[in-house]
Order: sequence, then C-alpha cells, then structure tokens
Amino acid sequence: MIQTTPKLLRALAGETLERPPVWFMRQAGRSLPEYRELRARAPDFIAFCLHPEMAAEATLQPMRRFPMDAAIVFADILLIPLALGQKVWFEAGEGPRLGPLPTIEALRGEVEASTGRLAAVGETLSRVRAGLEPDRALIGFAGAPWTVATYMLEGRGSEREAARIYAYEHPDELDALLDVLVDATARYLVMQAKAGAQALKLFESWAEGLSEDVFERIVVRPHAAIVEKVRAAGVTAPIIGFPRGAGAEVETYAEGVPVEGIALDVQATAALGRRLQAQGRCIQGALDNLLLRAGGPALDARVDQLLEQWGQGPWIFNLGHGVMPDTPIEHIARTVERVTGKARW
Amino acid sequence: MIQTTPKLLRALAGETLERPPVWFMRQAGRSLPEYRELRARAPDFIAFCLHPEMAAEATLQPMRRFPMDAAIVFADILLIPLALGQKVWFEAGEGPRLGPLPTIEALRGEVEASTGRLAAVGETLSRVRAGLEPDRALIGFAGAPWTVATYMLEGRGSEREAARIYAYEHPDELDALLDVLVDATARYLVMQAKAGAQALKLFESWAEGLSEDVFERIVVRPHAAIVEKVRAAGVTAPIIGFPRGAGAEVETYAEGVPVEGIALDVQATAALGRRLQAQGRCIQGALDNLLLRAGGPALDARVDQLLEQWGQGPWIFNLGHGVMPDTPIEHIARTVERVTGKARW
Repeated sequence: MIQTTPKLLRALAGETLERPPVWFMRQAGRSLPEYRELRARAPDFIAFCLHPEMAAEATLQPMRRFPMDAAIVFADILLIPLALGQKVWFEAGEGPRLGPLPTIEALRGEVEASTGRLAAVGETLSRVRAGLEPDRALIGFAGAPWTVATYMLEGRGSEREAARIYAYEHPDELDALLDVLVDATARYLVMQAKAGAQALKLFESWAEGLSEDVFERIVVRPHAAIVEKVRAAGVTAPIIGFPRGAGAEVETYAEGVPVEGIALDVQATAALGRRLQAQGRCIQGALDNLLLRAGGPALDARVDQLLEQWGQGPWIFNLGHGVMPDTPIEHIARTVERVTGKARW
Repeated sequence: MIQTTPKLLRALAGETLERPPVWFMRQAGRSLPEYRELRARAPDFIAFCLHPEMAAEATLQPMRRFPMDAAIVFADILLIPLALGQKVWFEAGEGPRLGPLPTIEALRGEVEASTGRLAAVGETLSRVRAGLEPDRALIGFAGAPWTVATYMLEGRGSEREAARIYAYEHPDELDALLDVLVDATARYLVMQAKAGAQALKLFESWAEGLSEDVFERIVVRPHAAIVEKVRAAGVTAPIIGFPRGAGAEVETYAEGVPVEGIALDVQATAALGRRLQAQGRCIQGALDNLLLRAGGPALDARVDQLLEQWGQGPWIFNLGHGVMPDTPIEHIARTVERVTGKARW
C-alpha cells in the first residue's frame, strides 16, 4: 500500500523521516510573477484574501512550481481584527493600517459573529484541499493574540515599543484584549480545521523583546488557552506554534504550550532544536531568508548543515522568516530540490 | 580589614555575594539633567567624548546620584571608526552618520596610530579613577567588530539588513574588515586597562537576527580573538561580553568566548542565566529598560523576581538595554536602593 499520509503530518506526529517535509513561509505571494498578475485583478488586498477563488489560486501557485510538502492558506493575520469590527486596510507599498481600537465591550460583542465573517477563508481551504494531491498537507493559520494586539493598539506595523509600554502600563486592559483574541482565534482555527486544514499554525510574529515574565503572560498563556479551546472543540489537527524572536524563551514556550510543532526562527541553535526534538517535539525551521535570497554555495552549504544537524529527530524544513519578495525563484527551486531530491512534485 | 575590592570585580571573579553589584547601561547621559547641562557646553558629541574633563564629569554624575557599584567611561562605540579614518558625526535628534568606508588597506594602515588618537579616553579613565571611591569599579568598553562594522557599512544606525546581506554576499571582505576591527579594538581595550579601567566590556549591540553559523563567524570568532589579544598584552582585567539579541546563541557565545562575564539582554530566561552560572560564569542583566521607565509595583516585583532567580550564583544587576532618556530619575533611584539597600553611596 502506498503511504499517502502527508509527510508534514507524519513529522508532526513525531516520526523521523528519511528527509524532512519542506514548505516555506510566504511561498505564495510576491516572489512569484503569477501571483503579482493574479493580485492585480483584485481591488485591494483584503478583498483578495476574502475571495476564495483567487486566494485558493494564490495558495496553489507555489505547489505547481515547487515540490513543497505543504500548502498554507493564503490569508492575513489582520483578518481577525477586521472581523471584530476594527477597520483594516493596506496602504500600497507601506503595509497595514488600522482604524481606532473599538472598546473591549464592542470587540467582545463581535466574537461570536467574527468567525462567520471569515467564512471565505474556509471556502478557500475547501477549494485548495480539492485541488491538492492527497500526500501534500494543507495548513491553516492565524496570527497570535499579542502580535495581532500590537497592530490593533498601534494602528500599523511598528517597532512595537508603544505596545510593550502598554503591556506594562495597562496590564488589565491588555489581558482583556488578549482574552477576546484568544476566543476569536480559537473559533477561527476550529472553522479552518473543519473546512479542510490538516494542520494549524499560530504566528507570533513579534515575540521578540519581551522579558520572560511578560512573555509568559502575553505569549505563553494565550497560546496555551487557544490550544485548549481548539482541542475542547474536538479538533485533532496538529498545531505548530511560532514564537518568532523569542530566543531562549522558546524553551519557556515549549514548557507552557502543548503544541505538536514548534517553529524556530533564524537564530535557533542546533543545540536548542535538538533539545526540543529530544523532548518529542517536532521542530520547524530555520534557513535565513536573506541567505535564500543571496543564493550561491553558501546557501547550499547551510541547507546541508541544517539537514545534518536536525536530521536525527522529527522536523520540518522551512525558513526562519518569510520568503522575501525579491528572492530569485531559482534559489527556491534549487533549495527545495536539495531537500527533497525532486525537481517537481 | 575592610574589604575594598569592588563588588563588581568580586562577582566577575566568580564570587556569590550577599547582593549583586549594580550599575546600569547608559546610567550617564540624557536621563540626567546635569548631563544635559554639561553636554550643552561642547560643540558636538564627538568633541564631548574626546574632552577628558567633560567626559569624566559625565561618567561621575550618576555615581553621585545613585549608589552604583561601577562607573563606565563616557565614550561612544563609533570612536573606533573615527580613529581609523572614517568620518563620523552625529545629526542632532537623528543619531550617527558615517562618511564613505575607506578601503581595507587604508583602514589597516591606521590601526597602529588609532589607539593614540583615542588617548583622550585613557585620560578620562585616569581622571575618573582618581575621583572614584576605591570600592567602586571603573569599566572601560568598546563596540564589538560586527556592530561597529554595521555602522561602517551602512553609514548610520539601521535595521542592519544591508549589513547582513553583505555578510552573505561578501564574506571575505567582511572578514577582512572584522580582522582590522579586532586588532584596533584589542589595542584600544589594552590602552583603557592601562589607563585605569578595572573591567572591560565588549558591546555587540546588534547580535540579533544572525543564524548560528554566521553568528559563530562574525561574532564569536572576533570576540574570542580580541580576548586572546588583550590577554596576550598582559591585561588581566575581567572582560564582560554582551551579545545583545543573541537569544539561545548566548550559549554558543559562552562556549566560544572565554570572557569572565556574560551580559544578558531582556529576553534572558531564568534557566539560561542559571545554566551559565552553573558553568562558573558571572552573568549580568537584565531588567527591561521599558519597565524601569514605566515604574510602579510591576517594577518592584520584577526586581525582586530577578534577585530571587539569579541570587544563587555570581551576577551583576543591570538592565537588558540602556536607560531610556525619558526615564524618571526616581525610578532609577528606587531600583538601585531596592538592590543595594542603600539610598546613597
């Protein structure tokens, strides 16, 4: 019998495979010319994310080009504040902008309805699942509460200093906001799993710069609460947590959050990854996206080094951050071929 | 006989004391009104740093206000490129600017002369030592090669992406630049020790965002080379290495760099610090400078937590980053009193 359980799910179940499954954060998107063409057909980025046909096509584009072992639904972490009633838009060439933060009562009042407002993402997942080979996995995702809160509080992407100051000066208000986000995010992930996502990823893109006590309060606790709620809803899809920039706090995270997979960023050491593997965790990571962009013999050498250092335990080959828009496609193709031994799926 | 060996030096020698010695990065400078008054008397920041009388006064100002256990010479990490012949100036309210990068040959040709051009820093140290109680330590410092190189390459403070790309695309050129900086920095630190510095600190302010292989090449190797050169010159003053933002790579650093002290940033976990202490290292850190600024019961609670978690091994109480200019002086005073039990020296 042919093994059709996707490699990604086997790795997340703790199996050590002959070679790690591979996918890249932002494998869909601006690095692909066919994406840029598709994107030009939608009036704005939010409309694009909420258009199941276009979002499914964007999700599948890299799956046709590269022998990736997993697709990740094309969406955005700011769909949650949008669904909770905060205005969200994207300024071309500048990034996201958010309107004034609604009151906590107003946000809380929208939680139940928010998931239905993101039904388009579920529809995207169903379409992708129907178009994807059975041995390639489909990942759903959400932004984690603290990261999403930084955007909600600051109104844009930033160095997040204002949000970190808020965490000290208004701890009760922040905790209340995080609680609302925990609830909305858990519901959103459950919806995605029911719509066809076989694994779920929680992106804490801005875990950096937090002292351990604050990290436990605003990262670990909300992540653990989301996992608990998702499991309580009967969803068994494995979950990957990504506390990007957490440094040594990744181990604090691993102790406190019962996720199957822990995604590591570019600074992950060989030793840190091995300690997590030895504890039965599947790790994911952590090629430098700048090196993927730069290419050359240094890229090949680092890929080999990663394959060597983490090949002894369950892991998923990925970047430490997303593919940069100006990354040459041939660097992606070459790297995925080096990991998989395949030029095409 | 009264013990007059400064507590800071005893901690760096591996002693566990009743309470940790304390000093704060940027304890001198813009958070103090007397500094702002003094600074206004110099035409520009570089002239101020190279004016021994004014720089010594700036160094001593926080020592009069607070019962700090150590003074750190008032200077700047960009004095090294200046002494090597690259133009350096400070734009008011914007930060440092550097002129075009000289050729590697030109820089190399200036190494021997560079230390003499920084004789004013030695004079500052001698003046401070003469004005400081014998049981308070005096620290000299330099910026570490990679951090200084990022400014030299980019011409200003930045997100350092261009420098990290340079590290991949021009490894040989970068290594040559780092070698020049290793040589100039070692000579500069030796000069400072001879002028009265009893401990030396190497600031790698921008260790973040580097993958482990690159971190070993551009942080660990140059730091180890500097330590070796300083020791070869007969200097026995303990050295504190500060790979800020290194996350879990702090342990890679500790394995490769034989410094007596390892300064930790705000993200240091209790466990990481304890592992280093168990290996006989003196650690330093790591109160959040944003929390020092915010103040209140959360500040007191975190100070107590740090005293509790690291009190079992040799350590130095400090921040994870420098004092912010708008930090209320009473927050600094209150925190230092909480650590030392003393309101005044």
